[in-house]
Formats: sequence, structure tokens, C-alpha cells
Amino acid sequence: MAYHLLQRDRDGARLLATASLQALERVRNCARCNTFCEDEVCAVCASAKRDPSLLCVVESPADLVMMEQSHSYAGLYFVLMGRLSPLDGVGPKDIHADRLIKRATEEGVREVIMATNFTVEGEATAHYLGEALRSRGLKVTRIARGLPVGGELEHVDAGTLAQAVIERRDIR
Amino acid sequence: MAYHLLQRDRDGARLLATASLQALERVRNCARCNTFCEDEVCAVCASAKRDPSLLCVVESPADLVMMEQSHSYAGLYFVLMGRLSPLDGVGPKDIHADRLIKRATEEGVREVIMATNFTVEGEATAHYLGEALRSRGLKVTRIARGLPVGGELEHVDAGTLAQAVIERRDIR
Repeated sequence: MAYHLLQRDRDGARLLATASLQALERVRNCARCNTFCEDEVCAVCASAKRDPSLLCVVESPADLVMMEQSHSYAGLYFVLMGRLSPLDGVGPKDIHADRLIKRATEEGVREVIMATNFTVEGEATAHYLGEALRSRGLKVTRIARGLPVGGELEHVDAGTLAQAVIERRDIR
Repeated sequence: MAYHLLQRDRDGARLLATASLQALERVRNCARCNTFCEDEVCAVCASAKRDPSLLCVVESPADLVMMEQSHSYAGLYFVLMGRLSPLDGVGPKDIHADRLIKRATEEGVREVIMATNFTVEGEATAHYLGEALRSRGLKVTRIARGLPVGGELEHVDAGTLAQAVIERRDIR
């Protein structure tokens, strides 16, 4: 990329440099949900159309975008900007645990949905924060584990199939 | 494969032919669960260690093997040997619906787990059979849909993420 910009697209290089500097200057964290935005509060948090009784906890701004693209959620968010990882020195303070607990308990939240990844760190994060929130009387849920949409038994790993059997649900 | 057998492995070709003929002669369908076996009743159905109050419905013998490999299930099975597909002329009779209903209602089954694939045909099959079994007073469940084990929000499709949110579960 560097060679291309210097050899063939010097105007592009200048544009990119200016945009990067502007982004560094303007982009900050939303005061409510912690995601990247250019205002005090992001567009989702500022919207009157969102359900303030639902709070979805995700690891990163990219995960927030994925949730929005799934068109399945109309509540608000809290972005951890990371996940618990003691081996890398990432503790509760680094994922803003205190701020999340304050946000979830102060403002009439009815349900907190843990939407961290199903990796080891993501699961540990969901467990740690879930316990902390439940001990304060909040209803905490976790997004479902199982077969993907369109998935066939023959093509999923044994661990996922086992989870799908364990977490089977009643047909209504 | 044909060229290889004829040019380099004529003994192998003879072995393969004999094995195919023997399989055609010996392999039949289990009288209870319908999977492939060489006896009147397959090893799973004959086992005293399996829980007879659980009945898992799968599309094919390969799916039964996947379920066994997941080590998450200790009940019995019923193999449909197909899935409903009206456009291909596959109706309830072709997936042995009557035999399944008889099997599920006659022998003290407490729960029927629909483990058909999450394809359009698999979902339709689960819905059709689930309704038929529920109307006979049976408890019917469906294996879970959601993110795979180890899965990250960024790497799943929007449909799967939407299902995972809709089918979220309480943290116990």
C-alpha cells in the first residue's frame, strides 16, 4: 500500500494522511455506550426510537455494527472496548466494568444481553460481568449458541452440536 | 478411481465388488429406529444403557453418527431417511411419519427432540412432525440455533446473529 501511494497516488496519500489526522482529532468515545463517534453521544444512544430498557454488551464497535446489521435488536448498547484476558493483563478496569454496572443500574434497564464472543475470553467476560450484574438484581441473558441458520448436522463441529442439544428449546 | 482400480489394483477392485455385494445383501434398516444395521435391531436401540424416554429425530444415518460423536445425547433415535420436500415429491409417507408417530406414542417416550437440519426442508420437516407429535400430547423440543462454539460476532452471518439474539437465554 505504501509503495502504491508513493509511486502512483500521491494525492491519495495526502488525503489519507489528512483523514487520519482528522479522525484522531474528532473521533472519541460515546459518553453513554463507549463506541466511537464524533459527538458527545452516538447516534444510537441519542435516538428516541430505541428501547432504553434493553442494554446489549458487546466487545467492540465492529460488533455493535454487526448487531445493527442483523436488524434483530432495538435496544441500546455498551461497548467494552476489549475482553477480560488476565494473561495479557486485561482486567475489569480495562473493559470499563464499573462504568457498565453504573450504566445498567442507574437508568431503568430491565434486561442486560451479554453479546460477547463465544471464545474463551468472551465467555469469561460474559460470566464475570453477568455475575456482577445479577448480584445487583438485574435480569441477564446470553445470546444463543447452536447451529447456524442453514446449518446441517453433518457440517458442524461436535462441540457446537453438543451445545445445540444441551440448549434445545420447546417447540411452541 | 475406476482407472486406478483397473490399472494398478485389480485385487482391490475384486475386494470392493465383493464388499459392495455383501453390504447390499446384509445391511438393512433397524426395525426400531430405521438406521442402517446388519441385525434386526441396531446396537443403539439394543443397548440397555440408553434412556428410552428420549427420542431424537434425525434425517439420515450420517446425522445419527454426528450426534453420537458429540457425546451429548444418551437417548434413542428415529432416522427419517430423508426430509419433506414437496417439490421433489417427498411427502410424509416417504419419511416414515406414521411409523415415527407410532414409535413415539407407543413406548413411553417423554420427549421428542427434532434434530433435522436448519435448511428450509429440515425446518419444514421439524415443524410438520413437531405439530403432529404435539397434537398427540408429546413434549417436542428443537436443537438450538445460534453462534457456533468459538464463534465471533464479526464472522457470523446476520441471519444467525439475529436468531441468536431472538433465542437468547437467561444466565443461571
